[in-house]
Order: sequence, then C-alpha cells, then structure tokens
Amino acid sequence: MSALASPPAYDDGNIFAKILRGEIPCAKVFEDERTLAFMDVMPQGEGHTLVIPKARARTLLDIAPDALAGLIVQVQRVATAAKAAFSADGLTVFQFSEAAGGQTVFHLHFHVVPRFDGVPLRPHEGGMADAAVLKDHAARIAAALRG
Amino acid sequence: MSALASPPAYDDGNIFAKILRGEIPCAKVFEDERTLAFMDVMPQGEGHTLVIPKARARTLLDIAPDALAGLIVQVQRVATAAKAAFSADGLTVFQFSEAAGGQTVFHLHFHVVPRFDGVPLRPHEGGMADAAVLKDHAARIAAALRG
Repeated sequence: MSALASPPAYDDGNIFAKILRGEIPCAKVFEDERTLAFMDVMPQGEGHTLVIPKARARTLLDIAPDALAGLIVQVQRVATAAKAAFSADGLTVFQFSEAAGGQTVFHLHFHVVPRFDGVPLRPHEGGMADAAVLKDHAARIAAALRG
Repeated sequence: MSALASPPAYDDGNIFAKILRGEIPCAKVFEDERTLAFMDVMPQGEGHTLVIPKARARTLLDIAPDALAGLIVQVQRVATAAKAAFSADGLTVFQFSEAAGGQTVFHLHFHVVPRFDGVPLRPHEGGMADAAVLKDHAARIAAALRG
C-alpha cells in the first residue's frame, strides 16, 4: 500500500465492535465510559488481557491523541493488576496495526500479557481457551484492579 | 518473584540513561522536554525506532500516568511518521517490562517497528545495524515528523 493511500475505513462488523455492542459475550475485566478490558480468547499466556477504546478506531494511527492518552493509562492499570493477580515476573504489551503489523481484529487493541521466567509466549491465535477459565481469570484481574 | 516484592530500583547505569545524559550517541529522530526517540541499533525491521521518556522509569508500571499519557502520544506521532517515511503497510509496537517480559534495557521504552506485507520481524537482538544507515533512517523519520 502506498503511504499516500487512505487507510481502510473502520468496519463496524469486526468482533470487538460486536463485543462493545453486547452482541457477543466477553470475559470482562473492566469497563468505563471510554474503555473495555477483557480476556483474549486465544491467550498467548495466562492472564492475557485486551484493552480497547470504545471509540471507533481501526489502528494506533487513527485514534484521537487525547483518547489514546486515556487508553494507555488504563493499559497501565490493567497491566499492574494482571501482574499482581498472577504473581507474574514481567509483562509484554503488543499493539499490532494493520495485517502487515500482525493485526487480526480491526479495532484498536493493546495486548497485555503477564510473563513468567522461563515460559515462552504461546503462538498468536494458538487455540481457544476454556470460557470458564477465562471468566475466572477476568475475576482475578478485576479483583486486583479494585485493590 | 513474589508480586509483593518491591520492584527493582531504577539503575542509572543503563544504556538509555547514558544516551539521555549524552554519554553515548544515538541516531536521534525526535526530542522534546519529556521524550527522546532514536533508532534501535539492533533493528527487527527497517525503521525500528525506540520512544522513551526522560523520566527515570524502569518499566510500564513505574511511570506516572500523566507522563505515560504524554509518551504514548509521541509514540503515535513517531509511528505515523515512520510508517510514512518507509511507505510501510503496518506497524508493530512492543513494550517489554522486566526480563521475563522481554526487556533487555531497564529504562521504559516503546518499540515502533514499521512492517511490510510478507516480511517477518528479525529476531530481537539479531545484530547491529550500520550507523550510517541508522542515521539516514532517523533523518527520514524526522523529516516525516516535520510533515
């Protein structure tokens, strides 16, 4: 794609838009007026959480700077809680923009993955997790968020 | 490490602290009062740029939220410029916190990697790039930042 080409438009049919509209469920960690955090259904590690804006943004490049600023503060909050909830040794945060960048759902999202010494990441889209496990993990991170 | 253990203290001897103090050089893309952006010397792709705060923060978890908010807006600016400068198809952003999370330099940094259809990332720490090439790449991104 030429850098001068217009970016693709936001597609309201993407999975995260459906989650935001309540059309499909998620294992919710946190929600406020501008943000939703929920468990990745194909986790690359225990406690893998997604943090997304409610704004219709396709990638990192097309969210308003003030909305992005608010979003990253929630990413930090969720990261702190997820690390505590799982007694993790570290964290990996990914943000993929466009298919070439690794994006598979075209609504801006930050991946927050608790990490453990000696435990490699599982592959992206490596398999669906059990829904009950995800619900339990969401509850653990939500409890840590509440302090 | 227990989640209840104190995080390691900031180490002023890390490479990025030395870059911030001007003790070692970098291929600078952008600098303001709170931020420095420069080329990764071991790029995982063409145009791989690091964006760091001047604040003494070890990881994503120990930077003040307002400073983090300002930092991510600069990440977005640099990402937009890097994508344009290299006519990239997408972007991958990484943030590694603590060794378990993939961190190798213990000063908070965001990796911004322009991505191209069909071109995989090179390994992290896969080899040193030529300094003249990095300087040229920094100049291209800086020019795109100026618009």
